[in-house]
Amino acid sequence: MTIDDSGWGQCPIPSYDYPSILLAHGGGGRLMHDLIEKIFVAAFHNPELESHHDGALIDPGKGRLVFTTDSYVVDPLFFPGGNIGTLAVYGTVNDLAMCGARPKYLSAGFILEEGLPMETLWRVAQSMRQAADAASVRIVTGDTKVVDKGRGHGIFINTAGVGVADHDLYISPTSIKPGDTIILNGDVGRHGIAIMACREGLSFETEIESDCAPLAASVSQLIDGGIEVHCLRDLTRGGLATSLVEIAQSAGWELAIDEKAVLVREPVKAACEILGFDPFYVANEGRYVAFVPQPHADRAMELLQKQDSTLLPRVIGRVIEKDRGRVVLKTLLGSERLLTMLSGEQLPRIC
Amino acid sequence: MTIDDSGWGQCPIPSYDYPSILLAHGGGGRLMHDLIEKIFVAAFHNPELESHHDGALIDPGKGRLVFTTDSYVVDPLFFPGGNIGTLAVYGTVNDLAMCGARPKYLSAGFILEEGLPMETLWRVAQSMRQAADAASVRIVTGDTKVVDKGRGHGIFINTAGVGVADHDLYISPTSIKPGDTIILNGDVGRHGIAIMACREGLSFETEIESDCAPLAASVSQLIDGGIEVHCLRDLTRGGLATSLVEIAQSAGWELAIDEKAVLVREPVKAACEILGFDPFYVANEGRYVAFVPQPHADRAMELLQKQDSTLLPRVIGRVIEKDRGRVVLKTLLGSERLLTMLSGEQLPRIC
Repeated sequence: MTIDDSGWGQCPIPSYDYPSILLAHGGGGRLMHDLIEKIFVAAFHNPELESHHDGALIDPGKGRLVFTTDSYVVDPLFFPGGNIGTLAVYGTVNDLAMCGARPKYLSAGFILEEGLPMETLWRVAQSMRQAADAASVRIVTGDTKVVDKGRGHGIFINTAGVGVADHDLYISPTSIKPGDTIILNGDVGRHGIAIMACREGLSFETEIESDCAPLAASVSQLIDGGIEVHCLRDLTRGGLATSLVEIAQSAGWELAIDEKAVLVREPVKAACEILGFDPFYVANEGRYVAFVPQPHADRAMELLQKQDSTLLPRVIGRVIEKDRGRVVLKTLLGSERLLTMLSGEQLPRIC
Repeated sequence: MTIDDSGWGQCPIPSYDYPSILLAHGGGGRLMHDLIEKIFVAAFHNPELESHHDGALIDPGKGRLVFTTDSYVVDPLFFPGGNIGTLAVYGTVNDLAMCGARPKYLSAGFILEEGLPMETLWRVAQSMRQAADAASVRIVTGDTKVVDKGRGHGIFINTAGVGVADHDLYISPTSIKPGDTIILNGDVGRHGIAIMACREGLSFETEIESDCAPLAASVSQLIDGGIEVHCLRDLTRGGLATSLVEIAQSAGWELAIDEKAVLVREPVKAACEILGFDPFYVANEGRYVAFVPQPHADRAMELLQKQDSTLLPRVIGRVIEKDRGRVVLKTLLGSERLLTMLSGEQLPRIC
């Protein structure tokens, strides 16, 4: 298990009577109340949470509401670049962002395995708080369950999110149009390879860190910058290829993708070769594609480059006026091949 | 494993290529898409879900928004009176109701164990749909993860809920006042005993069914009937006693409870005696306490009696003008004793 160095150590674990999770911490009595107070309320504290009610009163402001959920079962819990807690916050924030919404509130449901070290839980909760701060969301309501040893796997987390879309765009695969430019916000394949390397105990010359990051600010800058965004999709399980195939099928148009425009960093490329993976199918946690009208493409690229100079966004393709719902890849050799959806599991328990 | 007879059999499982869950069903590729379409979209179908987006656009209408979450890990998955699916819908609906909100939308996050029979998942999804219909909510967004065999336990479900409070009441322990009447909507102890009997393979002369039921309509009728509701609480993990102690501590007032007014049915009483449980601490899934001003109590009782003639609501106590934040039980023998919070776990994995 790798240790994330995201600053959790600055906040020492509160004095705690039990060094690890007991079944009674999920039993609804004194121990559960204690756990909630000393770990979760202490880490997440905000006015909504402190009302100690069964639910939180939230004020999302004006706009259309968006609601989403994701569960997180990543193995191992800690990996280079993040842990299950950062993932649980950014993953759900990113789902909201992909609907064009500004994330506002998260719920957090924990399924803990009996025997989990209390310190592990505290580190994860601290990371969630830091991630929530970075993504400008508040964790306002939660739940804790404990399952018998051997009936869970350390920590599973579910987060649900509520966000607000305060614009008139309808961001969806069905909104894309022939001629649209397809932009990818950075290099692909890092999250999946970081997890796999960790899981298999592989080490590479350069450590590969997960790209795990919140995407809502990036999307907001595009929308606020006047870009008429047609479709957004984050490239998680199934990777770039599966996301593009899903979009092509929903939209009914053909997508033409240029393989050489898709950035895969050298260490990731090398790891993929060793492990036998295709980086187009490897999971990411901070990458997305944006479909924008061609006349908006230059401005969108400028906005993306300004956000983070290390990211290297690229135009990777365009939408073709052929109603065939498929993805055609122009390969490095200049030939063409059809991309298909991932059919089995390349990397299970990646998020 | 007991079979629930809630009509799922009317809807046969769709033809399915795989008789049980594979890791690939959580991998993000073709198998996961297939599972979502054939099981979840088929069972839950509604316009929001069919947009196939990362999140759902929801329109909660006017009023204050309430947001809540709960995970469900009940063991066994099926029990007399319900299953993990009915529980996952009613539990979260009831948390919204306890905040005085009308439940509108649910998310559903599934953590499935590799090897789970597909038919089990289908039955649970069908029950969730039926429960959602009964509670007037829609399951609009979801997520599926699969964990390795032996790292989960069949099915874990998280549901988050969004509801609307379209009234001016502030329903909270801090709103209760000395003199308030405490009403309990029915008999206690059934859910916990039903689960325990099932788990231990006990059978009683009369089968004890879980009281698992949606409470939002009951609460709405009180509020719409003009009852100035001060506080509501459903009596889940920890049972009646733990809920009352929590409320007393948050409110800072003393609660006087009359043991003989609290209805425990004979089979539950007998089972508690055999198993060594105190029915005041046993979990319920369809019971709540309402704190109302004394002049509203008769009308509130009338409204509750009208809703369901089988339930037998009772006035069980009142709030005393002593700022001691404790619960005093007048026992059947006429003596008094202090109720405390459940300190260990009486029944783990009850919901």
